[in-house]
Amino acid sequence: MAMGKLVAQRMERLKSSAIRELLKHSKMDGVISLAGGIPSDALFDFDGLRQATEQAIVEQPKAAFQYGLTEGSPVLRERIAELCELRGVQTCADDIVVTAGSQQALDLVMRATIDPQDVFVVERPTYLAALQTLELAEAQIVSVSSDEHGMIVDELEALLATQRIKGVYLVPNFGNPSGVSLSEARRKQLVALAAQHDFLIIEDDPYGELRFTETRHATLYQLAKEAGHADRVVYLSSFSKVLAPGLRLGWAVLPDWLLHNVAIIKQAADLHASALSQAIVESYLGLGRLPKQIETIRHAYRQKGERLSALVEETLGDVLTFNQPEGGMFLWARFREPFDTTEWLKKTLAEGVVFVPGEFFFAERPDRSTLRLSFATATEEQMYEAVARLRRAL
Amino acid sequence: MAMGKLVAQRMERLKSSAIRELLKHSKMDGVISLAGGIPSDALFDFDGLRQATEQAIVEQPKAAFQYGLTEGSPVLRERIAELCELRGVQTCADDIVVTAGSQQALDLVMRATIDPQDVFVVERPTYLAALQTLELAEAQIVSVSSDEHGMIVDELEALLATQRIKGVYLVPNFGNPSGVSLSEARRKQLVALAAQHDFLIIEDDPYGELRFTETRHATLYQLAKEAGHADRVVYLSSFSKVLAPGLRLGWAVLPDWLLHNVAIIKQAADLHASALSQAIVESYLGLGRLPKQIETIRHAYRQKGERLSALVEETLGDVLTFNQPEGGMFLWARFREPFDTTEWLKKTLAEGVVFVPGEFFFAERPDRSTLRLSFATATEEQMYEAVARLRRAL
Repeated sequence: MAMGKLVAQRMERLKSSAIRELLKHSKMDGVISLAGGIPSDALFDFDGLRQATEQAIVEQPKAAFQYGLTEGSPVLRERIAELCELRGVQTCADDIVVTAGSQQALDLVMRATIDPQDVFVVERPTYLAALQTLELAEAQIVSVSSDEHGMIVDELEALLATQRIKGVYLVPNFGNPSGVSLSEARRKQLVALAAQHDFLIIEDDPYGELRFTETRHATLYQLAKEAGHADRVVYLSSFSKVLAPGLRLGWAVLPDWLLHNVAIIKQAADLHASALSQAIVESYLGLGRLPKQIETIRHAYRQKGERLSALVEETLGDVLTFNQPEGGMFLWARFREPFDTTEWLKKTLAEGVVFVPGEFFFAERPDRSTLRLSFATATEEQMYEAVARLRRAL
Repeated sequence: MAMGKLVAQRMERLKSSAIRELLKHSKMDGVISLAGGIPSDALFDFDGLRQATEQAIVEQPKAAFQYGLTEGSPVLRERIAELCELRGVQTCADDIVVTAGSQQALDLVMRATIDPQDVFVVERPTYLAALQTLELAEAQIVSVSSDEHGMIVDELEALLATQRIKGVYLVPNFGNPSGVSLSEARRKQLVALAAQHDFLIIEDDPYGELRFTETRHATLYQLAKEAGHADRVVYLSSFSKVLAPGLRLGWAVLPDWLLHNVAIIKQAADLHASALSQAIVESYLGLGRLPKQIETIRHAYRQKGERLSALVEETLGDVLTFNQPEGGMFLWARFREPFDTTEWLKKTLAEGVVFVPGEFFFAERPDRSTLRLSFATATEEQMYEAVARLRRAL
């Protein structure tokens, strides 16, 4: 029984980028994982989640358990619009589609815009699962370098001189895996290029609230709106990192020309996001607990990020370089000398510690001397031990 | 800002089959809807759902709110395998992927198997949203007639003499919209053809438990397994019709060659189904309330189905023919003389009653004299009034 030839080729490309196999040993007894891209459930607001769940199933049981609208619950969309406003994304409920995490929003937007072989630009390095949605849409993926100020937009501009592109995908705040944020100047430059060359920007912002400093950059969405080009930007975010990923709830703020098509594809994809999850988040936001919860996470992740940075500097600073994380969940490091971190993972696993080798975050020409360390879930003691084990594995 | 040309064409085809616009008035005050494909929430087991929800968030809060495995929770997959066994689908947890309703399972399987222009066969009439997943996958859709015994497999066999096909999609039990079931003889014939001509059968079974009689047909999955060809069948089902659609939880039983690919695409599509919904259904199944709940729904739907049949026979029998439903949620009718039910809908809306015009359930050459009436949500009084209004609209 054969699957389609093109499907088979696509699956081969997808499999080669899947790190599932590679990391299947990370849950073994005694192995400390700095690999996971998951938030710390030790920080979840379980009391608030329980209260919101009970409120949802008592006060609106029919809405929670019956079919709902494809675009999402009207009240939740209102509350998400209010949340967006606080982040500098001035929008309204009608421009929002509630999705099964921002992961689904990515997949839907790719399906609603990309023809096979359309060129889509990503950062070097970029979010692994975004690459997978681009592969599924059969985009031609081109990557542009990034540095400590995020994507090097000059490099994109040079590319545009010879190449027509369909869009740019990026995580402008505390990127996964790089941890860096796009500078204000580059944000403006990118938005101007999108208008000039008529391409779409997908602004993926799951980590924006996890800032370790008080600095908040203007969103690409807002800069585009102020310049009269809001139709060039899709803004995505999620409740996974600030509340609870198990609810699978995220959202997309979409321009008019795209919203109806995304909704039609979503209807075919899964009808709508979990009505129960929507009712719970609606209640949770009504409880007013989110701002305090975000403060709790920010504080804890900042401490963890500083701790891991100090340990890596102290123990591995002679062989690794990295940028001090200013938000998010990740520390992105590079060996000073040529090195293959995928090969190295076998040794570190033998020592009882895992991370994600950097090569998986590159669309092309991987820098194999890089690696991603997560500081979200490990305790300080585990981090200390993990870094010592990494040293021993050298 | 233009989307891809091929995407735009695909969206045009999808939009033309979308009945969203057409039915947007169905929620107006005073309008009785026989249009919805939704179960009756008056029959939901809210007590059991509350109990299961509380149990899930108290006993396994981390599993309910944290990220989970793409294929689904191992315990839930075990319980689904047990449920399958009772239906004559002998499988195991490892062959199951938990999805966001069976709608997502459909989309994932289409994405994992179909190359553009591959031929996929459906029934005339067939489930609207299956057509949409086939359109998204750019399949060439061919339809085969059905009668009171389901798909006319002889017609499929004739087609296979000249045409290579990738697969067949059907709802063999109480189909949506037809309400009919595939006969035992045709089931065996279809399974034999799949083996002989090497195509995939997608057996979509959301309604199988909603039988009004004691007759239970062997599943295509089981017949294929007994004949040594289980790798030719994908079995799909859902908790939406027997428990609560708002949870968005369904599943696919997949052959080895397909399961891993479906999981990889699911990971890119939304990482995994709602962990909270999974924990709740796991608890609910553990409470042992599902068999009784299914009995409740069967009994109520049988009464409603008989009532609507009697009313239609009495009031509209001179102009309409239909088969007495033996399960499921729908009564499928056809005008005795040529008629356009889409046009007619405007008149019935003016009288305060809506249904789904039949043409939307045809992949090609629509029979415009058909219509689907749902008996799941309307009360007996509403049905009485609805049928009287339909008469007045003639």
